[in-house]
Order: sequence, then structure tokens, then C-alpha cells
Amino acid sequence: MKRPNLHPLDIKNGKVDLTHGSGGRSMAQLIDDMFRKAFDNDLLNAGNDQACFEAPKGRMVMTTDGFVISPLFFPGGNIGSLAVHGTVNDVAMGGAKPLYLSSSFILEEGFPLADLQKIVQSMAEAASEAGVSIVTGDTKVVEKGKGDGIFITTTGIGVVPDGVAPSGEKARPGDKILINGTLGDHGVAIMSKRENLDFETEILSDSAALNHLVEKMIAVVPEMKVLRDPTRGGLATVLNEVAMQSDVGIKVYEDAIPLRPEVKGACELLGLDPLYVANEGKLIAICAPEDAEKLLEAMKSDPLGKEASIIGEVLEDDHNFVQMETSFGGGRVIDWLAGEQLPRIC
Amino acid sequence: MKRPNLHPLDIKNGKVDLTHGSGGRSMAQLIDDMFRKAFDNDLLNAGNDQACFEAPKGRMVMTTDGFVISPLFFPGGNIGSLAVHGTVNDVAMGGAKPLYLSSSFILEEGFPLADLQKIVQSMAEAASEAGVSIVTGDTKVVEKGKGDGIFITTTGIGVVPDGVAPSGEKARPGDKILINGTLGDHGVAIMSKRENLDFETEILSDSAALNHLVEKMIAVVPEMKVLRDPTRGGLATVLNEVAMQSDVGIKVYEDAIPLRPEVKGACELLGLDPLYVANEGKLIAICAPEDAEKLLEAMKSDPLGKEASIIGEVLEDDHNFVQMETSFGGGRVIDWLAGEQLPRIC
Repeated sequence: MKRPNLHPLDIKNGKVDLTHGSGGRSMAQLIDDMFRKAFDNDLLNAGNDQACFEAPKGRMVMTTDGFVISPLFFPGGNIGSLAVHGTVNDVAMGGAKPLYLSSSFILEEGFPLADLQKIVQSMAEAASEAGVSIVTGDTKVVEKGKGDGIFITTTGIGVVPDGVAPSGEKARPGDKILINGTLGDHGVAIMSKRENLDFETEILSDSAALNHLVEKMIAVVPEMKVLRDPTRGGLATVLNEVAMQSDVGIKVYEDAIPLRPEVKGACELLGLDPLYVANEGKLIAICAPEDAEKLLEAMKSDPLGKEASIIGEVLEDDHNFVQMETSFGGGRVIDWLAGEQLPRIC
Repeated sequence: MKRPNLHPLDIKNGKVDLTHGSGGRSMAQLIDDMFRKAFDNDLLNAGNDQACFEAPKGRMVMTTDGFVISPLFFPGGNIGSLAVHGTVNDVAMGGAKPLYLSSSFILEEGFPLADLQKIVQSMAEAASEAGVSIVTGDTKVVEKGKGDGIFITTTGIGVVPDGVAPSGEKARPGDKILINGTLGDHGVAIMSKRENLDFETEILSDSAALNHLVEKMIAVVPEMKVLRDPTRGGLATVLNEVAMQSDVGIKVYEDAIPLRPEVKGACELLGLDPLYVANEGKLIAICAPEDAEKLLEAMKSDPLGKEASIIGEVLEDDHNFVQMETSFGGGRVIDWLAGEQLPRIC
């Protein structure tokens, strides 16, 4: 396609202005010089307002997520990689292979084009690693003071293999609960950056695309009951949701939950409970007891599942309580998050 | 599904706070009491982070759009109905029948729940009229001063009938260009509200879902070449995009372009050119010359096409100019919109 004739974008020193969202020549230039160059694929390059593709046979999933994180750049990623990982993961939690993403940008006037470029590059890299294409998008600009730099909404679709249908209401008493690694890394990475804390060991966000791990898990346990990623609200929230959806109780063992010592320390310092802190590269899986060991093995064979662990089990309980057996042998109820622990963590 | 036990939402007097985006109990309540009640459908009610459905056979389209309009409520609609219409229309412009929408909300702390309720109700009504379901969503809340009330990103998918494949690069010299009605109504409705202007006749936005009209058009001319909705940047921008994508020139006849006298008057008063003003219930269609009359007839048979008109034709032109033959028989080039005429019109 030919392009409208304009001076090249000044990515180094330029800033987003209202014309970049106007639908006119400047917007076409921003799309061509930044988004199309980074996301380069035939569906996007067709330049229509919608991407058109051959639908795969079978069941599909669709999911959407808005990202309003602050700060935009954090140890281990930025809002761009996060926006891709988050939506890829929500597709994968449906047991599906992610295919295509859309991306909608809401930019604040004055936002540096250099920062936008970094974010867009990270999106492109994250998409490429996950094996998905960003095939359609939208750009809007709001006046200075009416946004916060950049918000990104990504939507994803994927195709579900035959016979696979994980869903939150499928947990049954006796089922085992597994996690693929340590809790709280993302939330603590963001909070340490936000509070300007320096720890001896830098804590990196766990932000990552989990679809390749899920593929391995599904291969050995296609009758997976529940897959869920504990993002906002953390493990506690996800377990409470599942307990309610499946009308069961849940018990987890404190000692079995992987936690980095430095994250534990930071949580104590910041007054956070790691059970409620957001993760962006973690999943919980619930499966029949006889499948638990082979599932654990499959998870450990993936780089993102090396620290996988069986952390608990499903119980019969009309109150749908989530309980934790503590290191000292006691028990406590892990309640829903009532207030707001960490605003704008994802 | 059971619901967490909380006091009912105070929709009449309550306001959005940060807990509504936290992933915890308050968010679950907002989703249950407001979004699920309004959008009520089995896919959404499953309560998972993704909707799962049987994929239709054949080609599909995917499209996304962020809505950052100001003011949120305007004559003829609000940001909610607009967010549904806009995305339904982008699906329909791919020649597709829209199936499912996702909806991502970015709310500003302090936003009245009563306004949110009105917006969500309008979304539900617009979706129902268009025959689509809102099957998955996301809610984020940003601190007061970091957003502007509410931003909505909707993403849509649809299925394309066999043999139908409109695309911006298919216009050929000799093809005819049609429009389904009057230009500029949406932009002028917004601007008059924004500037507190009172006209003798209230100008309503044309915001509407065009998918039923498109279905009728496709039925008589399945080999439709181009379908495009002139939203941001107006008719001028869409014609320039198509001229560039198809590597052709375009000529339109000023006298053939439908325009309400009151919109013409308001544009003169506001210093706007109706060719560049946003529409939200209009489409242009480009078809082979021998198909133009039957297409026009099909358009006129739909309530949203009563004022349809053949407004121009495609020419051979290496410069890809869009020209207008004026009422006085003269000509002028309709250039790309260079600056920003109307920020946040959609």
C-alpha cells in the first residue's frame, strides 16, 4: 500500500498530540511508521478497519483485558509486554491455543513517542515469542490531564483442542490444585519500583506468556478441570472464585506454596500478603487426583514450570471456604479481598 | 453461580472507587449486579476470564475500537450505544455478520454508578438490536484525575458469508460510490452539546448499527468491492484511504452528497467542513457500475438507507487524488485531514 507523504515521525524527541488520534494523516503516519512496522503481518498490513482470516474448525475462546499499570516500565517488563502476556494467558486459561490479538491504545497528549516505541517493540517481541499476531488495532488520543500516559486494551481469540474444556465450575472434592511457580513476583516488582525501594536482589516481574506451558499440560491431561491465572487479587481471589463457581471448599498448604525469600521479605516490609498480590506468569491447575503427578511432571519440563508444586486440594464445603493449613499446623480462612490492596498493578 | 455476600450496590448515589477494579469482592459485585444483569447471556454468565463458543465455519473478521468521547451523553446516544454501534459497524464493513463483542471499561474513581448504569443499559439495548452478545469483559479503575469518567474499548468478531470479501484495495476505475444517508450528524450533535449550542431543530447523532443494512446489500451484491464507515476524519478521510489502498483516484459530486440543512448551517457556524466530520451510522459502498442501481434500491429498502445516494465514481489517477465536483461545476481536491478538527468525537 502507498503511504501518505509526510515528514518522518520524530520518534526520538516527538510527543503524542491530538492529531495522532484524529483519523487523518498524522494518525495514518503513526500507524504506518510505528505499529505496522513493529507488528508486521499481512492481516494488519491490509489496512482495513478489521482483520479477516479463515476460522479454525471447532471451539474458540475470546477474552479482553485493559491495562492501566503504573509505573509503565518495571523490572522485568513494561505495559506493552504485559498487555500481550495478560491476554495470551487468558486465552490459554481457556485451554486454547492463542491465534490473534487486537490492540487498542488510549494515549495522553504529550506522551513521548520514544516511550511508545519501546512499548510497541515489547508488544511485538512478546507476541512473537507467544506465537500470536496483532492483527487489528485502534488509536485514540485524549487531552493532557485526561489520561495517564498510555492505556492498552488487548483482546485475544484462540482455538480449543477437541475434548479440552477447563472451566471454573468443574472442581470436585478430592481434586488436586497445582501452581507453576513462585507467588507475588509481579506485584512486588511493581510496588518496589513505585515506592523506589532497592532490594539487595532485584525482584523481577514474572510477566510471561503461559500458552506453551499450557500446551504441554493439556497434552498429558486433556481432561483438565480448571485453569486460572492469579493476576489481580492474587491466588486468594482465584481460589475463592473457583470455590464459588464449583460450589466446593478448597484447602491449600502454606509450606507447599512456592515463594521467593526476597518477595516474602518485601511483602513483610510493604505490609502485603503474597496470597493477594498479582502475578502475571502464573497459573493454577485443578485436575483429578490420579492425574496430579503426571501433570506436575509435564509442568516441570517447561522453563516456566520448573518450580511447579501441588499446593492443595478441593473439599466438600457448603460455605465455599478457602482455608490454608499453616506451617505451624494451624488453619486460617483465606477470605475474598474486600478492599483495594494494590491499585493499578495490571 | 453463587455470589459473594455483600450489601447491594448503591446505584442511585454510589460512585466508582478503586476497589471496583481490584479483582476482589467489590469488583465481583459490580460485574454481577451491573454488567451481568444487563448483558445477560450464558457465555458471560459462565464467569470465566474468557468466553468459549463453537466457531462458525468459514472466514471470520476481528476488529477493535476505543471510545473516549466527550461529552459522554449526547443527543441521540451515549458512549455505551456508540461503543456497540462502532464495533458492530467495523465488523459489518468486513462484509461479516457480527457475532460476539467483548467490552473493556477503564473507569475513573468517583464516576457516578448511576451514569455507568445508564451507559451499560444502552450497550445492552444496542447489542440486542444489532443481534450480538457481549460475552466477555474487563473492568479497571484509575485514580481521580488519571482518566476522564469512562473509556470503553469494544472488540468484535463476525463471520463472513462465502464469496463476500470487501476490502479497501478493490476499487477500480469506473466503479460507483454510494452512501446510505446524510453526512455529519454525529459530529455536529457532539459539538453542539459540547459548545452548549441550541439549534431550532435538535440535531441527533446518527449512531446506529449498520449490520442489518449491510446484510441486505450483500444479498443483492455479494461481490461488493469496498465497504467503509466514515467515522473519525469523515468521508474525506475514508475516500483518501481507499484511493491510496486501491491506487486510484476518486471523484464525488457535491450535489449528490446528502446533508441536512441544519447540519450544513451548524457546520458553517462552527467552522467545520461536513466532509471531515465524524459519522456513526453511515457507510460508503463501492461496487461495479452495473451493480450500482440494484445496490441503491436495496439500501433504500432499509430504514437506515432511505436517503441513500450514488455520490461519485472511481477514476484512474496515479496521484490518488480525491476530487469534488462542486455545485457550481468547479472542482477541488479533497485532501487528507492534516490537523485535528474535532478531538474525542468517538
